[in-house]
Amino acid sequence: MPITPRTLSGFKDRLPKEAYAKSQMLKSIVTSFEKFGFSPIETPHLEYAEILKKQGSDEIQKEMYHFIDHGGREVALRFDLTLPLARFISQYKNELGLPFKRYCIGNVFRGERAQKGRYREFTQCDFDFIGTQSIGSDAEIIQVIFQSLSDLGLKNFTIHINNRKIFNGLCESLNAKEDTTEILRIIDKIDKIGQDSVSKELQEKTSLTLTQIQTLLDFIALKQEGDSLKFLSLLSPYKAYNQTLKEGLEELESLCEILAPLIPQSFYQINLSIARGLGYYTGIIYETTLGDLPTLGSVCSGGRYDNLTQNFSNEKMSGVGASIGLDRLLAGLEELGLITSSTPAKAILIPLNNLQYAYTTAKSLRELGIKIEVYPEVIKPQKAFKYANNKGYEWVIITGESEQATHSASLKNMQNGEQQNQLSLEKIADILK
Amino acid sequence: MPITPRTLSGFKDRLPKEAYAKSQMLKSIVTSFEKFGFSPIETPHLEYAEILKKQGSDEIQKEMYHFIDHGGREVALRFDLTLPLARFISQYKNELGLPFKRYCIGNVFRGERAQKGRYREFTQCDFDFIGTQSIGSDAEIIQVIFQSLSDLGLKNFTIHINNRKIFNGLCESLNAKEDTTEILRIIDKIDKIGQDSVSKELQEKTSLTLTQIQTLLDFIALKQEGDSLKFLSLLSPYKAYNQTLKEGLEELESLCEILAPLIPQSFYQINLSIARGLGYYTGIIYETTLGDLPTLGSVCSGGRYDNLTQNFSNEKMSGVGASIGLDRLLAGLEELGLITSSTPAKAILIPLNNLQYAYTTAKSLRELGIKIEVYPEVIKPQKAFKYANNKGYEWVIITGESEQATHSASLKNMQNGEQQNQLSLEKIADILK
Repeated sequence: MPITPRTLSGFKDRLPKEAYAKSQMLKSIVTSFEKFGFSPIETPHLEYAEILKKQGSDEIQKEMYHFIDHGGREVALRFDLTLPLARFISQYKNELGLPFKRYCIGNVFRGERAQKGRYREFTQCDFDFIGTQSIGSDAEIIQVIFQSLSDLGLKNFTIHINNRKIFNGLCESLNAKEDTTEILRIIDKIDKIGQDSVSKELQEKTSLTLTQIQTLLDFIALKQEGDSLKFLSLLSPYKAYNQTLKEGLEELESLCEILAPLIPQSFYQINLSIARGLGYYTGIIYETTLGDLPTLGSVCSGGRYDNLTQNFSNEKMSGVGASIGLDRLLAGLEELGLITSSTPAKAILIPLNNLQYAYTTAKSLRELGIKIEVYPEVIKPQKAFKYANNKGYEWVIITGESEQATHSASLKNMQNGEQQNQLSLEKIADILK
Repeated sequence: MPITPRTLSGFKDRLPKEAYAKSQMLKSIVTSFEKFGFSPIETPHLEYAEILKKQGSDEIQKEMYHFIDHGGREVALRFDLTLPLARFISQYKNELGLPFKRYCIGNVFRGERAQKGRYREFTQCDFDFIGTQSIGSDAEIIQVIFQSLSDLGLKNFTIHINNRKIFNGLCESLNAKEDTTEILRIIDKIDKIGQDSVSKELQEKTSLTLTQIQTLLDFIALKQEGDSLKFLSLLSPYKAYNQTLKEGLEELESLCEILAPLIPQSFYQINLSIARGLGYYTGIIYETTLGDLPTLGSVCSGGRYDNLTQNFSNEKMSGVGASIGLDRLLAGLEELGLITSSTPAKAILIPLNNLQYAYTTAKSLRELGIKIEVYPEVIKPQKAFKYANNKGYEWVIITGESEQATHSASLKNMQNGEQQNQLSLEKIADILK
C-alpha cells in the first residue's frame, strides 16, 4: 500500500520560488551582520531537556518537543536560540573571549496549536552582543537593524526605542514595584486591545488606582515630535522622580547621541509605549515596524538583558541582542514587491537537436558570468516554452541546427515574446547582464 | 543549583572560526549549484515516522530518532534528505513540473554509536535531477561536482565513474543475478579490506566459484590509461556478453562524449571497482577523491536511481543526484590550507578615547566597502591588541585623540607589528582591500 505523502500539521515545505526568496533574504541579512563583525555559531537542534527547561514561559514549556533518546536521556528540540546561546556562552566563555558577538540562524520547534501563519517549526535569526554594558553595544544592535533592513531594499521603517528602566522607575514612583512584571505584560497588549481594555485589566489585576493608571497611560502616550534628543530633553523633569527613571532617560540620551550621526532620524524614535512583554529585558528595548505595512507588527525586536546565563552560573552576564522575524519579514517583502527573481538561473537553454552543443554553449555562457539551466533532453520548442514559463524564466536560449552551424544561439524574451536569432554568446551575455 | 552546560554525546557546537569556515564553504557550494539553475527547497526536520520508515537500511532504521508528539502522532527526525525529497516530489509533482532539479542543505539525525569524527547530527548537501532519463542529466551532475570543488579552490581531485549495469551484466554472465546485491555490498569494501578479504567473503556468502570470483576481480581491476573514451573502446568486446553489459558500456560512452569538452580529462576517469553499496542505485554512479588526501575517502558521491518514489506511488520516477560530504570536505580543505580567513570582518576598530568618533569612523569605512568590528568600550591599547589577537584579527584600526583631531585613524598590522599613524580613511580602505 503506498503511503500518502504529507507533512505533519503545523509543518511546512517550501517550494523553489519561496525557498529561493528566503535564501536570498538570508544571504543579504548575513552580509549585513558581517559588515559589523558578527560571527556565526552553530549549536545542535537537540539538547538535554533540562538545558531548555527552566527558563521560558510556561506555555513554551508545554509546547516543547521532548522525548527519551536511545541512551535513556531526556532530550528536547530547541524552541529558541537564546537558551542554547546561554549554554554555549557558559560553556566556552574563556575560549571565546568577552565581549563576544555572534549571529545564529536556525530552526526552532514549538508544538503550539496550529493556526494560520503560525508554524510548529520556524526559522529564527538572532544577533547578540554579550559581556559588555557599553551603550555603544546597544547602539550597534540598532545600527545593525537599520543596516539589515536597508540592505533588503526597505526605505520606510521605524525603530521604536524605549528603556525598561523608565517603566520600572515609573512603577516605583507609583509604589507598584511588585506589580511591574504584570503591568508590563498588560501594557504590551496596548496596540492589540486598546487603551480602555488595558486600563480595565490594570484595575482588575494590579494594585494601581484609577488615577495612577491614568498617569501611567498619559505618560506612555507622550509622542516624540522633532528629533529624539529634543524629546528626551522635554522628559528631563522626570529624572527627579527617582534614580531608576533618571538612569533610564540618561541611557536613552547617550544612545541617541551615538545614533544621531549614524542613522537618519526618520528611521528611529523614542516610543514610551514599547514594553516587550518578555520578563528578561532590563534596559533599552526596541521594536521595528514597516511604514507601508502598519498592521504587520514588529519585524525586528530586542533589547538588553542582565542575566542571560542564570541557569548555568551565579555570575551575572549582561548582553544585548535582537531577532529578525524572518517569516513575517518575508511576507512583508513579498507584499511590497521587493522580491522579484524566482529562479537562481537567469535563463534556460533549450536544445532543439544536439545535447552536446547545448552543454558546451551553456558552459561558455557560465564562463561569461551567466547562471544558466539546460533542459536535459532534445525537445520541441512549444513544449520547452511551456516548461520555461512554468518555472518562471524570463529568458530562453535556443540552440538548433542553424545556431550550431554558426556557433551562436538564439534568445527569446518570454515576457514580450521577442526572439533574436543567432546571436554571439558575448552578445547574449551582455543582454542578460 | 546551576545546571552543567554541556551538549548531548555525539552532538557538536561550532565556535565562530569553524562556523564561519563552514558558512563560507556553503556559500561557495550554493553559488556553484545555482550556476546550473538548481533551486533550493526546504522540508521540515520532523516528519511522520512512516514517511521515513520503509526505505533505508535496517541499521539506519534502528538509529532513527522517533517519538510520540503532543497530538499522539508517531514522528521522527529525518536521517537523510532523500526520503523527504521522495515525499516532496510525490506530493507536488504537478506543481513543480518535471524534470525538476533542486538542491537541499540541511541537518539530519542518526543515533549511531558515538565515535571520533562521526556525529549524531550532521549537515547534508544534496543536489538531484528528477524525472529525466537523459544521459545529459547524469553529465550535468558530474559537471556540478567538478564546478563545486573547483570553486572551493581544489585543483587536484578525481571523479571515479562506473555504471551499475556493468556489474549487473557481469553477475548475469556469471549466472549470479540473485546474488548481485550481496556481491555489490562486499565489493564496495575493497578499498577498506583489500582484494583477498573480498575474495574470501565472496566465497563464503555468495554462490560464486573461485574462478568466477577471479574473473570478477580481474575485471574490476582493469585500470583506465589514456582518456576515458579510449578505455571504453578497449572494453567494447564485453558488450557481446549480454544486453545489460552493452547498455552499461554504451551509457558510459555517451556520458564521456558529453563530458569531453566540459571537464578536463585529468579530473575524471572510468573506475570499474566503484560499487556504491546502497541498494537503490541503478545506473551510472560516481565517487570523488582528493589527490592530496588519498585516505580521506569520497567527498562527493552519487548516481542514478529508478525508483525514488516507490513508497508513495506505483509510478516509476527516475532521477540522478549526488551529495557532498560536508564535514569531510571541510576537514580536507582545512588540512590543505584552503580555509584562511577566520573573521567575517577585515579589521577591528579600537576606541582609545571617544566612542562616537569610533562609530562614525567605522560607518565611513563600511561605506568604503570594509567590514569592520568596533570594540564597544573605550579601552587601553595593550588590552585591545590582546583581544584582537585572540579573535584572529590581522588588522587593528585605532582612533584616539590625535586621530579625531585630524579626522583620521591609525592602522596596525598584527602579524608584523607595523603601525601607520593618522591615515585617511580612504587610504585605510585601499590597504585593507
